[in-house]
Amino acid sequence: MSNGSNKSALQAEVEKHLEESTPIENAVVNVSALAKILLGSWSGVRKQAREFVKDPALHQTIGLPLEEQRERVLTQMHLLVKNGSVHRGFPIKVGGHDDNGGNIVAFEEMVTADPSLQIKSGVQWGLFGGALVQLGTDRHHYLLPDVMSLKLPGAFAMTEIGHGSDVANLATTATYDPKTKQFDIHTPFAAAHKQFLGNAGMHGQAAVVFAQLITLGVSHGVHAFFVPIRDGNNFLPGVSGEDDGWKGGLNGIDNGTLAFDHVKVPRENLLNRYGDVAEDGTYSSPIPSPGRRFFTMLGTLVQGRVSLDGTSTTAAALGLAIAIRYGNERKQFPSGTGGDQVLLDYQRHQRRLVPKLATVFAQLFAHDELLRKFDAVFSGADDSDESRQDLETLAASLKPLSTWHALETLQECREACGGAGFMAENRLTQLRADLDVYVTFEGDNNVLLQLVSKRLLTDFSDKFKNADAGALAAYVVGRAAEAAYHGTGLRTLAQTIKDFGSTARSVKELRETNVQRELLTDRVEAMVSELASRLRPASKLSKSEAAELFNSQQNELIEAARAHAELLQWEAFTRGIEKIHDAGTYQVVSWLHDVFGLSLIEKHLDWYLIHGRLSPQRAQAITAYIDRLLARLRPHLQDLVDAFGFEQEHLRAPIATGAEAARQAEAAEYYRMLAASGNAPTPEKKAKA
Amino acid sequence: MSNGSNKSALQAEVEKHLEESTPIENAVVNVSALAKILLGSWSGVRKQAREFVKDPALHQTIGLPLEEQRERVLTQMHLLVKNGSVHRGFPIKVGGHDDNGGNIVAFEEMVTADPSLQIKSGVQWGLFGGALVQLGTDRHHYLLPDVMSLKLPGAFAMTEIGHGSDVANLATTATYDPKTKQFDIHTPFAAAHKQFLGNAGMHGQAAVVFAQLITLGVSHGVHAFFVPIRDGNNFLPGVSGEDDGWKGGLNGIDNGTLAFDHVKVPRENLLNRYGDVAEDGTYSSPIPSPGRRFFTMLGTLVQGRVSLDGTSTTAAALGLAIAIRYGNERKQFPSGTGGDQVLLDYQRHQRRLVPKLATVFAQLFAHDELLRKFDAVFSGADDSDESRQDLETLAASLKPLSTWHALETLQECREACGGAGFMAENRLTQLRADLDVYVTFEGDNNVLLQLVSKRLLTDFSDKFKNADAGALAAYVVGRAAEAAYHGTGLRTLAQTIKDFGSTARSVKELRETNVQRELLTDRVEAMVSELASRLRPASKLSKSEAAELFNSQQNELIEAARAHAELLQWEAFTRGIEKIHDAGTYQVVSWLHDVFGLSLIEKHLDWYLIHGRLSPQRAQAITAYIDRLLARLRPHLQDLVDAFGFEQEHLRAPIATGAEAARQAEAAEYYRMLAASGNAPTPEKKAKA
Repeated sequence: MSNGSNKSALQAEVEKHLEESTPIENAVVNVSALAKILLGSWSGVRKQAREFVKDPALHQTIGLPLEEQRERVLTQMHLLVKNGSVHRGFPIKVGGHDDNGGNIVAFEEMVTADPSLQIKSGVQWGLFGGALVQLGTDRHHYLLPDVMSLKLPGAFAMTEIGHGSDVANLATTATYDPKTKQFDIHTPFAAAHKQFLGNAGMHGQAAVVFAQLITLGVSHGVHAFFVPIRDGNNFLPGVSGEDDGWKGGLNGIDNGTLAFDHVKVPRENLLNRYGDVAEDGTYSSPIPSPGRRFFTMLGTLVQGRVSLDGTSTTAAALGLAIAIRYGNERKQFPSGTGGDQVLLDYQRHQRRLVPKLATVFAQLFAHDELLRKFDAVFSGADDSDESRQDLETLAASLKPLSTWHALETLQECREACGGAGFMAENRLTQLRADLDVYVTFEGDNNVLLQLVSKRLLTDFSDKFKNADAGALAAYVVGRAAEAAYHGTGLRTLAQTIKDFGSTARSVKELRETNVQRELLTDRVEAMVSELASRLRPASKLSKSEAAELFNSQQNELIEAARAHAELLQWEAFTRGIEKIHDAGTYQVVSWLHDVFGLSLIEKHLDWYLIHGRLSPQRAQAITAYIDRLLARLRPHLQDLVDAFGFEQEHLRAPIATGAEAARQAEAAEYYRMLAASGNAPTPEKKAKA
Repeated sequence: MSNGSNKSALQAEVEKHLEESTPIENAVVNVSALAKILLGSWSGVRKQAREFVKDPALHQTIGLPLEEQRERVLTQMHLLVKNGSVHRGFPIKVGGHDDNGGNIVAFEEMVTADPSLQIKSGVQWGLFGGALVQLGTDRHHYLLPDVMSLKLPGAFAMTEIGHGSDVANLATTATYDPKTKQFDIHTPFAAAHKQFLGNAGMHGQAAVVFAQLITLGVSHGVHAFFVPIRDGNNFLPGVSGEDDGWKGGLNGIDNGTLAFDHVKVPRENLLNRYGDVAEDGTYSSPIPSPGRRFFTMLGTLVQGRVSLDGTSTTAAALGLAIAIRYGNERKQFPSGTGGDQVLLDYQRHQRRLVPKLATVFAQLFAHDELLRKFDAVFSGADDSDESRQDLETLAASLKPLSTWHALETLQECREACGGAGFMAENRLTQLRADLDVYVTFEGDNNVLLQLVSKRLLTDFSDKFKNADAGALAAYVVGRAAEAAYHGTGLRTLAQTIKDFGSTARSVKELRETNVQRELLTDRVEAMVSELASRLRPASKLSKSEAAELFNSQQNELIEAARAHAELLQWEAFTRGIEKIHDAGTYQVVSWLHDVFGLSLIEKHLDWYLIHGRLSPQRAQAITAYIDRLLARLRPHLQDLVDAFGFEQEHLRAPIATGAEAARQAEAAEYYRMLAASGNAPTPEKKAKA
């Protein structure tokens, strides 16, 4: 049997299986029913927010000078205030709605209007306002009405030039003086200057500044302080800063640096929910452990990560809605010259876009679960330590994947639309430029994934917390033996022989949910267990040797976290399709689900082959299966992106309006008329014949 | 043996092999000697061009309004004229130097100044001027002095709205009327309008227009015509157009559309080198076959592809020079808090940047070979049909990989620099935005790779041109049998057993050049042969069925072309390192070469495993080997990017000036002084103890 015909046999088998198992004739997507499911748990708020962002006054204008972009976004912020869009997340007592989930949902939808508007809102009401709510107490909450009304624009001054992801080691100090009852806020050198702060470049009148709290000669770690920074356009005494100027995107936001030269603020400006200083300088905290206190304070940052996960998913969906509409109309060869294929009929075009569409569906379902968890924790319905930690791990897992995926998707969409994709009016390039920084802010993606991998390792060792050392050793040996069994190809051999002559079996199993689950789960567990066993010697090594050992596994740690996050997305997608109740929609979305699951396995095929989880024959079946599913999904792609529910006011891309189809109809009509007139020129070849 | 300890055994073996085989102590890079080699065959011109583009007047200014960007670039173009930078490629008789290779080299170096300036130069002197030189005859060459001096700015009007990559089916017509002795240039519908044309938005006074030449009722296919379009700022009668406005990048160029409503031009305006029309309307051509004539005319486009390959390589090198310098200074944890690791000491950081650095080296060597081939063909030294075809295939192979690689590299560099990478002043985001369109213009990358795959299939079948059908059948069966042998895992088994207990053997072989060559070559050959056998039935199918069969293999066709292009790059790198004569430099660059070769194999590991070319054990050794090579290369990374030869006037990125190291020294000094003063606060934990 040749490899070529092997593949053909595979393809035939895939085709046969699909024919037998799926009622293709009935597969029609109920777009509005699917749209309702995809809107998620806060569908009312989401629809309302989508309706609101149709207002052209909120839309990004390309090419404005820097100051005008910033002014425009500031004006738009006031429109949000007027609309009451910013109140949802604030406490009821200050005029808010205490609706944490709904607040995030409305925030996410702003990305279709202008990512600068979104992120500047996030700085003002999520970070600056959120810090006052979460880290402050009643003595600060009097500020909130002015924060909500934008009378008091503020910055969130955490990041320092010398300390990007390393918040615990911030160098800015806040030293308490019992004599004056003031804190002295000070950035002792350039690396301590606060950097990349939204609202700091121009508009900010105050900042929540993170600094090492020092009182009575003791440093109690990082705390937050309310610090006025400007009076109108002028810095207050002791405060200075620079405007960051042009960035790769988000130029509607005035980012900048802030430096503090012994700036004095009253003792009460300490946001004292988790740590306070009495008039005499005595420090107290409801959380005795400095480490735990620090992580509790940082826990408020999770809101940003949750919202970026949803935002990135919305942006990727928007890009696909534009590119798939265009691909459905655009012909490679013009009307009148034969061939009615549009771009989406080409296999390569499907390969470029459909797995990304499948990922967006997975992300939508995963994000809805994340939102619900976030809402439960922040509303207090379920804010146990464990739930908070789960929320943080979930957000740290999903945010890296979805933010990276948005960039990849917008780029693929732009390329799939050719030169038209490069025109700013078609949205794709600017959206990508604006979202670029999402992969490194609110937690650098690589840093977040390392946090996830540490959690995975902890969970792994927790399994044996109450077991004696012997049980642990036995388990490790057991896993290792199993790994060897997989690893040396022995299982491959067995599977190959089992598969041999039974293509049907290897093909059929791949679409079974349990088989996909097992493959994806197994990879995460095996990777974590391998890492745990490789890192075990660390406890016996010197600090620097242990660091070196960890560093030698850093890449694999991140890959294990990524595998975990992919599994979470796949599981959410698997649960999500159960919400679909009509058969046709269920069928089509199930195909998309399989594309997602099988694409994940295809992406890591080398791992499955090395570890003996898939035979070479079955590995080939995966690619063949995806190819067939792409062809099956082809007629439904427009319905699937229509179910995202965007309207022309959200898309705002000339290539997604039907203009292309109209132009082609005009061309076809011209050639038809020309042929009918008898005036069409003869091609040269025929003339010679 | 556990998988974990298996890996450790592997790592130990890799380490042992490296220790034994490489004189690490002596490995010092001779930066200036390496720099000279990397400058390539036109090192004199390249150095001169680099010196010239240091002039701040040529540098991109971020954030100018659209009109000002365009005016600035136009002014810069006049500086190029004044400097004589644009003459190299033109014929000696009109004041040029007839130096085709040198012309491209100087053009490439402009990317560090401003990609808009580069591409607008390319439009004016490469495309517009080049078409007059290559497709016109003496009767047009009188125009060249004005083209060179920029007295006559022009557009290259090929692409139409409805016909991106499908030049043969352009809809614009040029109909000859023997009575008036004029051509009538006409775009009969919107899809025929010329689109995305540089210089068409504002500055262009004329255009080379590609249109179907029709005379005496016969269409002779696409030809080029010189057509005046503007008088100053106003369109001439019958000409209209729109400004493309803002784009994703390259906003210093005035792109636009052009439409022609029965615009009359004299018969002599036909660029008649490859096809002419006599006064009476009789058509004649030195190339009887319309197909061959068409491809000959299009052959002039190869210049653009050659130059984009070099440009993208230069841009990626620039990005890496910035990111590696920063990674070498930036600390994750600040000075004074312990830990002296800079970003580049982290394994993940090395993984992100070093394989990309290796690819840039491969591209530099491959590009030099491409340039020499281009120069030989265009100078007439070796312009046989075969050489021209080889040149076109080589350019179509390399341009897609290097343009994509530039985007990936600039993005990875931007992320590796965190928030600082997102600041426009650090160059990475704007360079990426400007280069974005390189992947779809001058031949969409996916379309070019399909052309390459067709050439590979033709070469494959040419092997049997003179053989009888029996020989071909025997060969196909032979290959198929071999494929089955690889494919079903039987060879995997054999290799696994051979490897078992002999880690040393599997590790050692991987660094042998011949082993890498065999693996890379084998993959290309096997892919092409598999495709050929799968596509064989096409000849017996109906046209639409054959098209469907081809479409079902489109993705694999493109992947085969990519594999071919990767092999070409690897081969060029392999030849290139032989130019290095000192042992230390040779050693270090050899490690980089191995990173390149092994990374290619690692990227396609699933293929090697499925097809039985690598055992699981050996496959794991590849990753382990790369990890070790990264650590080995670590101390040499700064030298390797220094060898690109950029100076501060090229980098122009504040993060690549040493500012970061200076800030850290300041911080360290502060903490040192603080500790010495005895005023440093005690950490809370210690206070409690």
